[in-house]
Amino acid sequence: MQPVVTHSDPIAPVVFGVALLLTAALAGRFAARKLGQPTVLGELLMGVLLGNVLYYAGYDLMVILREGPKCAEMVWLALSGHGWGEAAVMVLGGDAGMAFIEIISRPGGSQYLQVSQAVDIFSRYGVIFLLFHVGLDTCVAELRQVGMNSLRVAVIGVLAPFALGLIVGWILTPGASHTQHLFLAATLGATSIGITARVLRDLRQTRAPEARIILGAAVMDDVLGLVMLAIVSGIVVTGSVSVTDTARTILLASMFIGGALLLGPHFLKFIIWVLRRLDVLEAKLFISFAFVMFLAWTANLAGLATIVGAFAAGLLMLDSQFRHWGDPHQHRYSIKELFAPIEAILVPIFFVLMGIQVKLEMFMDWQVIAMALALLAAAIAGKLISGLGLVGKGNRMAVGIGMLPRGEVGLVFASIGKTLNVIDAAMFSAVVLMVVVTTLATPPLLKLTLGQGTEDEETEAELTKRCQ
Amino acid sequence: MQPVVTHSDPIAPVVFGVALLLTAALAGRFAARKLGQPTVLGELLMGVLLGNVLYYAGYDLMVILREGPKCAEMVWLALSGHGWGEAAVMVLGGDAGMAFIEIISRPGGSQYLQVSQAVDIFSRYGVIFLLFHVGLDTCVAELRQVGMNSLRVAVIGVLAPFALGLIVGWILTPGASHTQHLFLAATLGATSIGITARVLRDLRQTRAPEARIILGAAVMDDVLGLVMLAIVSGIVVTGSVSVTDTARTILLASMFIGGALLLGPHFLKFIIWVLRRLDVLEAKLFISFAFVMFLAWTANLAGLATIVGAFAAGLLMLDSQFRHWGDPHQHRYSIKELFAPIEAILVPIFFVLMGIQVKLEMFMDWQVIAMALALLAAAIAGKLISGLGLVGKGNRMAVGIGMLPRGEVGLVFASIGKTLNVIDAAMFSAVVLMVVVTTLATPPLLKLTLGQGTEDEETEAELTKRCQ
Repeated sequence: MQPVVTHSDPIAPVVFGVALLLTAALAGRFAARKLGQPTVLGELLMGVLLGNVLYYAGYDLMVILREGPKCAEMVWLALSGHGWGEAAVMVLGGDAGMAFIEIISRPGGSQYLQVSQAVDIFSRYGVIFLLFHVGLDTCVAELRQVGMNSLRVAVIGVLAPFALGLIVGWILTPGASHTQHLFLAATLGATSIGITARVLRDLRQTRAPEARIILGAAVMDDVLGLVMLAIVSGIVVTGSVSVTDTARTILLASMFIGGALLLGPHFLKFIIWVLRRLDVLEAKLFISFAFVMFLAWTANLAGLATIVGAFAAGLLMLDSQFRHWGDPHQHRYSIKELFAPIEAILVPIFFVLMGIQVKLEMFMDWQVIAMALALLAAAIAGKLISGLGLVGKGNRMAVGIGMLPRGEVGLVFASIGKTLNVIDAAMFSAVVLMVVVTTLATPPLLKLTLGQGTEDEETEAELTKRCQ
Repeated sequence: MQPVVTHSDPIAPVVFGVALLLTAALAGRFAARKLGQPTVLGELLMGVLLGNVLYYAGYDLMVILREGPKCAEMVWLALSGHGWGEAAVMVLGGDAGMAFIEIISRPGGSQYLQVSQAVDIFSRYGVIFLLFHVGLDTCVAELRQVGMNSLRVAVIGVLAPFALGLIVGWILTPGASHTQHLFLAATLGATSIGITARVLRDLRQTRAPEARIILGAAVMDDVLGLVMLAIVSGIVVTGSVSVTDTARTILLASMFIGGALLLGPHFLKFIIWVLRRLDVLEAKLFISFAFVMFLAWTANLAGLATIVGAFAAGLLMLDSQFRHWGDPHQHRYSIKELFAPIEAILVPIFFVLMGIQVKLEMFMDWQVIAMALALLAAAIAGKLISGLGLVGKGNRMAVGIGMLPRGEVGLVFASIGKTLNVIDAAMFSAVVLMVVVTTLATPPLLKLTLGQGTEDEETEAELTKRCQ
């Protein structure tokens, strides 16, 4: 019984690596706030900086992290008996594959793989919590009240960039497959409500008619975008653009969403009743956590992205469901407050990791630059056109501009495309550029077109009341 | 550029598996609370139940999870070019190795490995946050005020079980190495302050002289136990019981602890000053997180366990360090409150996983039963003897009983021993039995010897004041 002695705790390099990434994210947030920019941009750009500078400085961890999900794919290939060399060349191709092999065959090289696996897991959980949060912020009641103007803006705002994106893809990346074109186009449709909402709040314009239309449309866009993602990734997975497959995907997706919306509240009510003897705080946390994960898993079973499930869970969970429970003094923590620390750790890891995966050297190729610029133009034009959905009086330009920022949702789509292998390194870098530019441009442009308002801020209590 | 299509999101099985474990933990907590037992026991025993029942029911995930850290070791061996078969036989031995290979070579089998890796990472983070929490609960000021009685009780309470454990190990497991005996003996020394403190609170006896001595001694025991762990794991890693190596370990450990205690507060002050422009909530969370991880990593560099660093971080972080910061209304979240949701998710995963790793079939062997019972006797006798450290008037028996529960700390030591390969499956199962019995026995015995008191509960405010 001679023990094999491992010389140090395997978690040590992992906690260090993760903490370093978080520190970088914090620095990015800090810089963004100093410059009056959305914090998500700070985290993303800090990732771009870190990833590229340290990569060229020969820092091994970055070589692995910037390959992102490909790394995990390689590990599984290698484990299924292909041998490292073969797996690396299959997934990464010759040069990158050899560089990768060289790193992990050094002593201690496997530590980098461990760090990258932990970072990958954390960032995927981060995305799930991010979409859960978006779902929590969206109220179904409000969706029903969204006016026809918002609906038109939302639909145009998803379809116009999609159509323009398809055209750009077909013209500028003729070598890519149809599924790649479809996915790339779909990433252009998302609207990040978070950034626009913050800008509108800063301008004290949340109750202006244009603002109401933009916010309603952005919420609808989250839903439409997720439906689009469901359809497109269904097509990618089945590998064909056949009508029956698409119909099946839509059917499954509708069944999932219908089932979740119909059965979810009853299921939650039942679980909350079963667990009524527990401490309300821990029960709230556990129930929410388990519910999010269960719906994410079910969504995946139904052929949808896990984030669709997380978003649905966010739609369905309400603090009011817990209101008849125990000591009222314990109710001071809302679901959002309970998840805030978890999100604050996991979500920045996702954004930094996205930044790290942007390969700036891709832009050394004129074709890639052309593609990126055309994509950016399609993304901007498509959303500006959506302003035309506003019928009657109102500033159509302001509405179009308000729909511009892609923020986190566009990134989430792009990362899913990477996992599905339909967004390659060049496309991914182009999408990130598009996200950065549209997000950067929105606040000053919106200020120009809408101007500063004078209204009072909506209080948290009013917001909550509106949603229950 | 033909894409390789993966058919579903790799995170889906992971989130499902983790959520299932958490649900099991919740059920265990619920049952424990109904029976008036510490929740940690509920989680642990639910793990034992789940692990063994599902294992014998042929549930594949349990086959992998109950191997615990060995699984990760195997993956790395396989990745370093040994091939699965060879790696499995090297780490697990013939039969278990073959069963393992069979599972992961089925379609979808690699999902189980992914789940087990994620669970492993989460539970290790859980342990770090657990010890951070213990550190936060320990105040250095109070350590200085601990009386000679507490100090004597603490020292005897660590050394007596250690000596008895060594004897038991030498007699009953003659085949094991010296380092295995040392580590096994060291796991007997820990005292869980959490459980005793709760029982004393329930009995309204926290201000009885015996209670003060027990609590002081238990706090000292955390420190002494970690020092013991540092020395023993140093010996395990260097592989020899030489005086110079032990001296070097002690020197490094003292340098780390001295350095952390001396420089830590200044470092924190500086960082807090640098980041003073950030939102206090997020800064508190990020700084604490990064500080814990940094110290855990440094401790590992110094040849100590990562949890020693996490504990030191907990000692050094005080909410009062942030008091001059920003809006006083934002101060309502303490560091503990910020980490509570993260802990609530990660720590139960650790306990359930520990339970799953208890192989009940080990107790089919008379030799193992004899060893487990002898270990239990050593653990109880050693702590009861520690009551003799009380000089003067007082209930020595009550003090000894108060030192009995091992709770989480004993488990943490055992899990580190598993990672270091010096605690085998039989020893691990025996240690868990010891933890369960000592923790179960303490509350009724303490009630018998101390009786119900009448004092008021110490308020949170008083506790905080005492520690700043």
